[in-house]
Amino acid sequence: MNGCAAIVPHMIQRALRWFYGLAALLCAMGANAQTLPSWNEGDAKRRIVAFVHAVTDQTGKDFVPTSERVAVFDNDGTLWSEQPLYFQFQFMLEQVEAEAAKHPEWKDDPAFEALVARDHEAVAHMGLKPILSLVAKANSGMSVGAYDLTIRNWLKTAKHPRFNRPYTDLIYQPMRELLDYLRQNGFKTYIVSGGSVEFMRPWVEQAYGIPPEQVIGSISKVSYAMQGDMPVLMREPQMEFVDDGPGKPVGIYRAIGRRPIAAFGNSDGDLQMLQFTGAGSGARLTMIVRHTDAAREWAYDRASHVGKLDKALDEAQAKGWIVVDMKRDWKRIFPFQ
Amino acid sequence: MNGCAAIVPHMIQRALRWFYGLAALLCAMGANAQTLPSWNEGDAKRRIVAFVHAVTDQTGKDFVPTSERVAVFDNDGTLWSEQPLYFQFQFMLEQVEAEAAKHPEWKDDPAFEALVARDHEAVAHMGLKPILSLVAKANSGMSVGAYDLTIRNWLKTAKHPRFNRPYTDLIYQPMRELLDYLRQNGFKTYIVSGGSVEFMRPWVEQAYGIPPEQVIGSISKVSYAMQGDMPVLMREPQMEFVDDGPGKPVGIYRAIGRRPIAAFGNSDGDLQMLQFTGAGSGARLTMIVRHTDAAREWAYDRASHVGKLDKALDEAQAKGWIVVDMKRDWKRIFPFQ
Repeated sequence: MNGCAAIVPHMIQRALRWFYGLAALLCAMGANAQTLPSWNEGDAKRRIVAFVHAVTDQTGKDFVPTSERVAVFDNDGTLWSEQPLYFQFQFMLEQVEAEAAKHPEWKDDPAFEALVARDHEAVAHMGLKPILSLVAKANSGMSVGAYDLTIRNWLKTAKHPRFNRPYTDLIYQPMRELLDYLRQNGFKTYIVSGGSVEFMRPWVEQAYGIPPEQVIGSISKVSYAMQGDMPVLMREPQMEFVDDGPGKPVGIYRAIGRRPIAAFGNSDGDLQMLQFTGAGSGARLTMIVRHTDAAREWAYDRASHVGKLDKALDEAQAKGWIVVDMKRDWKRIFPFQ
Repeated sequence: MNGCAAIVPHMIQRALRWFYGLAALLCAMGANAQTLPSWNEGDAKRRIVAFVHAVTDQTGKDFVPTSERVAVFDNDGTLWSEQPLYFQFQFMLEQVEAEAAKHPEWKDDPAFEALVARDHEAVAHMGLKPILSLVAKANSGMSVGAYDLTIRNWLKTAKHPRFNRPYTDLIYQPMRELLDYLRQNGFKTYIVSGGSVEFMRPWVEQAYGIPPEQVIGSISKVSYAMQGDMPVLMREPQMEFVDDGPGKPVGIYRAIGRRPIAAFGNSDGDLQMLQFTGAGSGARLTMIVRHTDAAREWAYDRASHVGKLDKALDEAQAKGWIVVDMKRDWKRIFPFQ
């Protein structure tokens, strides 16, 4: 749009503001039923809606300008399922197995042993870094474009063992509605995940409405190289950054440079992100998704080797963070249910 | 805005599209004079406008959807001046001098020697990394909030030696207009600079309309810590990432995950970013700002120790990138002129 034409919509928008105000007023009474339709009425939904009203009410003491409305979401166990093993680990396992013949030295690597033995407990105990490092080696010497295709192809064909559906079907409908609701209210929504950026970017825009540039996660080193006269980014065999636990506030600082006013997690890996978000001044929304529904999804917390929720649950209770009980608070879990 | 009220503007917007189209038509003839008013009519302006028309024309073969309209801008020498020394180096010099008494070991550090001797040539020859590393040490053990304040205070009081004005006055008016013009046409604009993210974030939103989360640059390591029960991010004495030369496409990949369709630089440090942008398919805008105006700004290129433009100028000429001649193409340079 050129300079002159750009002014016309501005004038129209200004004139229409009174109309929008009127529309909002007329809609207000019927609105609650339509907000977050997959959430049961209860404390969790009520507090979310109250927070959004507080920070968007220009006349209130908790008003926050749009530019500061930053909301961060963990991915595994918060926006989609993570059982029986983080879905990315399933992908990685296949990648590592395919490359194993070329790497006889891996047979002494505990991360490799645990992965091929499907020893979920050992995998969980060693944490993200050794696993991610192994996969960084398995998929090095490949351009980022080729790796992206590998991921897309896997996502198209792989099926979840319990639900026999593509993994990307196992996203939480109530959280999708929450993302939409926040964005409709001027929030910028980010993923902040221990999973790798490369694994999430191909599908999260369609699944959650979150564009690739709003995905913060673990990331491999890449280097710039020329293939003939074509510049490419090549994957190096090291991790650049692991975005988990205390790495999450660091990842947020690096990528956003503002403190979020709302944070959503489900495990001890999200504790520092929740602390960091909650410690800012003004109204804050800090929320934990608790897995309590073995029938429709899974039930696990303190003793789980995937998505362990222990310290963060204590802190949630001490500080009064919202703890969503999936069984009680969610009418449905997956879009296909 | 709640779910019901959100629908009303959508309906209005749809009905208004025909009106916007009409307005655009009516405005078209008078538009050229108002687009980029500080740019002289000529090849550079003509090619910029032609590119924007091509990628925004829904009926044309070069149309690009809004989500892919990513434009990246170097900062020093492209959006503001960089002579007689990168402005951030001036700040760093003062920081390092203030800390020097505590670091007797620095007297053997060539980066320290060059900085305190104001040996601009030596500083330029050693590149960004040793200088940034020295400053990372000088400003470590400080929270990111305290460092942010230090930078803001310096920017408020420091004056440029030639113009006797705050450094932030030395931004290029034609480039501000270009940023606005691109954003009005649905582009997302990013800074991709060798300078540090911390140094830019406090002022670039006001100066260029670029929010902190769209600033990609060099960055120090930070770590998460508790001060009492207050979480803080502390600066560590190492660099995390140097965003210069081949680091620029890497920084873009890490932060954005899409290839830009437009890139703007002024020196050899921007060469790889321009190559990487130019190598994508479809319409591309790759542009170099050439400093040719010693009277209003500075004139320098192949022999300069700041903002050296040599290989990138050869490649610009070979590949037909736009080379903006500041003297010829810009009606004015700084907003205060």
